[in-house]
Amino acid sequence: MTGADNQQERLDGYIAGYVDGEGSFSVSVQRNRTCRVGFQLVPEFHVSQNGDRAQVVELIRGRLGCGYIKPNSKRDRALVFVVRERRALLDSVIHFFERVPLLSSKRTDFEKFAHIVRRMVLGHHRTLAGFGELLEEALSMNGGGRFRQVQWRELVAFQNPQRLYAGQG
Amino acid sequence: MTGADNQQERLDGYIAGYVDGEGSFSVSVQRNRTCRVGFQLVPEFHVSQNGDRAQVVELIRGRLGCGYIKPNSKRDRALVFVVRERRALLDSVIHFFERVPLLSSKRTDFEKFAHIVRRMVLGHHRTLAGFGELLEEALSMNGGGRFRQVQWRELVAFQNPQRLYAGQG
Repeated sequence: MTGADNQQERLDGYIAGYVDGEGSFSVSVQRNRTCRVGFQLVPEFHVSQNGDRAQVVELIRGRLGCGYIKPNSKRDRALVFVVRERRALLDSVIHFFERVPLLSSKRTDFEKFAHIVRRMVLGHHRTLAGFGELLEEALSMNGGGRFRQVQWRELVAFQNPQRLYAGQG
Repeated sequence: MTGADNQQERLDGYIAGYVDGEGSFSVSVQRNRTCRVGFQLVPEFHVSQNGDRAQVVELIRGRLGCGYIKPNSKRDRALVFVVRERRALLDSVIHFFERVPLLSSKRTDFEKFAHIVRRMVLGHHRTLAGFGELLEEALSMNGGGRFRQVQWRELVAFQNPQRLYAGQG
């Protein structure tokens, strides 16, 4: 190890620590009529930061070499760094946090996220069975979001009853 | 550098990153009739964490070897790691973040904090001039807190007009 490696290890650790506090790995469910089940799964990695101190999101974008920074909302000055592009999620984001792991239980969400993205890269979400399986996993992330879960399960089942259940088991 | 050093660098980086997001260096002003100016400065380092994932605050307390963890409030499950003991702030907290710096502009607050704690260890706050100087610096931290600033300035001036102004310049 050289001094430069040492600095790099510390910087990578810094990014993991910052992301463990302010980052989020999520998979949202969105309507999309062009998809077979009428919905799509949208994996997203994001990290927020107060607009007064944008340095960290810029540093993370620079290190990961992907994604974009945008205002979080019109109401405040917060910025958010976002990666949605699937290949960038896999090659950059997931690769990074497998090498430099999160240390809180947010790591469980990251592992589910990585599993879902890998399955999607292989096209598993395009089969009904695969979509159902990934939907279940997505809904179990980030504390489960109980109300959202019920809502989406019912909506998907209502819109595509035979399709969704035909695809399971 | 060995593999263990490497892991340690990464862990220390992680702590700096987490603290840059979720930590705070502050100096509050509290009434204290036993102090000459009627108020005291209370430097505090704290780091918050959702109670569902207490691992990180425990890890930080373990690494810094000082402070305590308590519920943040009765209303939620958040925990907070707190260091107020002046010698621990100096020997452990300040020493750590001087070696492994914050990378956002929160670093400016940390530097003011370190300066105030060092001055207090030397007893500068016990003179009226010293107290006035450190109060100014404390009030300029964490975005200035405009309302709080006016309030405290007026309060201190009101209670000890000649003392406070006599101590300046």
